[in-house]
Amino acid sequence: MAVTIKDIAQRIGVSVSTVSMVLNGKDYRISPATREKVEAAAREMNYRPNRMAAGLVTKTSKTLGLIVPDITNSYFAEMAAVIEAKCADNGYSLFLCTTNYMPEHDVKYTNLLLEQGVDGILFVMSVDGHNHRAGECLQLLREAGVPILLLDQEWSNDIAVNVISDNEQGGYLAVRHLLELGHVRVGSLTGPAGTQTSQKRLSGYKRALQEYDLPFDPKLIVEGNFRTDSGYDQCDVLLAQNVTAIFAYNDMMALGIYKRLREKGIRVPEDISLVGYDNLNFTDCLEVPLTTIYQPAAQMGETAVVKMLQMLAKERPQDVVFAPKLIIRASTSPLL
Amino acid sequence: MAVTIKDIAQRIGVSVSTVSMVLNGKDYRISPATREKVEAAAREMNYRPNRMAAGLVTKTSKTLGLIVPDITNSYFAEMAAVIEAKCADNGYSLFLCTTNYMPEHDVKYTNLLLEQGVDGILFVMSVDGHNHRAGECLQLLREAGVPILLLDQEWSNDIAVNVISDNEQGGYLAVRHLLELGHVRVGSLTGPAGTQTSQKRLSGYKRALQEYDLPFDPKLIVEGNFRTDSGYDQCDVLLAQNVTAIFAYNDMMALGIYKRLREKGIRVPEDISLVGYDNLNFTDCLEVPLTTIYQPAAQMGETAVVKMLQMLAKERPQDVVFAPKLIIRASTSPLL
Repeated sequence: MAVTIKDIAQRIGVSVSTVSMVLNGKDYRISPATREKVEAAAREMNYRPNRMAAGLVTKTSKTLGLIVPDITNSYFAEMAAVIEAKCADNGYSLFLCTTNYMPEHDVKYTNLLLEQGVDGILFVMSVDGHNHRAGECLQLLREAGVPILLLDQEWSNDIAVNVISDNEQGGYLAVRHLLELGHVRVGSLTGPAGTQTSQKRLSGYKRALQEYDLPFDPKLIVEGNFRTDSGYDQCDVLLAQNVTAIFAYNDMMALGIYKRLREKGIRVPEDISLVGYDNLNFTDCLEVPLTTIYQPAAQMGETAVVKMLQMLAKERPQDVVFAPKLIIRASTSPLL
Repeated sequence: MAVTIKDIAQRIGVSVSTVSMVLNGKDYRISPATREKVEAAAREMNYRPNRMAAGLVTKTSKTLGLIVPDITNSYFAEMAAVIEAKCADNGYSLFLCTTNYMPEHDVKYTNLLLEQGVDGILFVMSVDGHNHRAGECLQLLREAGVPILLLDQEWSNDIAVNVISDNEQGGYLAVRHLLELGHVRVGSLTGPAGTQTSQKRLSGYKRALQEYDLPFDPKLIVEGNFRTDSGYDQCDVLLAQNVTAIFAYNDMMALGIYKRLREKGIRVPEDISLVGYDNLNFTDCLEVPLTTIYQPAAQMGETAVVKMLQMLAKERPQDVVFAPKLIIRASTSPLL
């Protein structure tokens, strides 16, 4: 059981407010003898100040929360590491929570972080604009009056600031590259259906098709979960549609696809061209270096913290949208 | 400012204890009319129960803390993801904290998590047995009476349970493999000097040398930080020592070394043999598939949660040590 200032007061026979004044450094009216007695008792009894209670006075805990879907995705891991370092530079500690793309965990961790008294939340939501869980999270944050910064997935609203990269453009660049190479049947391995980044990349895929006057075939769109295993597992489903190229919505899944193709003796890029997304740091060293879409994870993380600090200083910063870039390597080639 | 039960009591003119009894479900003595009035006010005023205060009654918050050095290291990321999932399965939420291998951050986050009232802490310490920060963390946890599970890095002590893999044996297996291939000058790119995993792998390196009657040359030992960049940056320092093989203490650094070697036109394994550690999921798909040491990150994470749940149930589980395995791929070959 935690030791309270009441316990200390009882132990040495002084009032609770005397103990409180000493331990909060507002002891100008307390005698040196009493002050020492309180401090000695606090040490002996191993008193630990209640941060929540302290927060009620200072209204700040110097802690921030970061909620991300999946820390095994190196894209989020890099972002989280930069955010942690930037927070530490500014005297903030960071609690990181992972939701495994479960919207109900978004709500759970929003509640938990609010209960822990964080000063603000940086949030990569797992849910799309049509899902009511996202609205629930924002409503909780609105009511609590806690600054919120939406990272990676935007959401037009009155309270949050968005720091994202242009996923529609990223999807467009990936698929236009494949169409330029003469591919017509381009398979698409998406993230979880509700995920906004995934929906936007799919919109970009469709825009590229339209530009090339190609029809949209829903059978070429297969759902993954952004993990390597789902690339491996869903590869055969795409192959059954006679695709000549695959756009995987992240590098982790592209790696899984590559593993399965290699196992089946299907060559990249001779038999199948492959594009990933994120430009993870191993992609240029693969057996077949991967064509991919770069988005600046570190810069996004750093910007997110800068914007959060502005919000904590009662400013209202602008949204930021970063531009993705196509990086062409050996995994894509002209359709023969 | 958070709404308290006192605010609710004042608003509707009842006692604080009445509000408390209603909101804690101990309202058998309260009239239905009053109960409804309290509940309505709590809703309207957006009352949020203080988890710490609730914890003082139930003595449990159903939250756990996990402290790791670096989440961009996929080994820790995989472990963290498994721990989060296993916690969720058992009704626990997880706060993840990263320390960037700074012992003072170990202490900071130990304090923060204790203040937040977590029920237990899973801890990958950044510090070695000789560093007083580790002792400080354990002392804090001992005084708070909070169960602690040390993961990845062990520490003989009276309170913590250890779940680790045998790093001395892992280092031994890596270097013995290189010595068997005829290499004599084996460079060693360690983690941060204080890190226990790093020290143990170095002990294994020395044991292998002894077995082959080779002298230990401290100039062949170079310090890295377990990140890709440090492999890239320190590669030239090792090359200057005329090594014919390099043992990098994790795959992230091995990747960095590989990038630098490729840039310099030095071939793996023809000119330099390379061994990593962790068997990350991209290592079998690299241009030159990487020989490495496997340690079961997922199984370690899962075991850690099982042991923590036992500790929370007032049991005292045994330490667990997992055996590492050598995985031989194309990055190592006989010295010509």
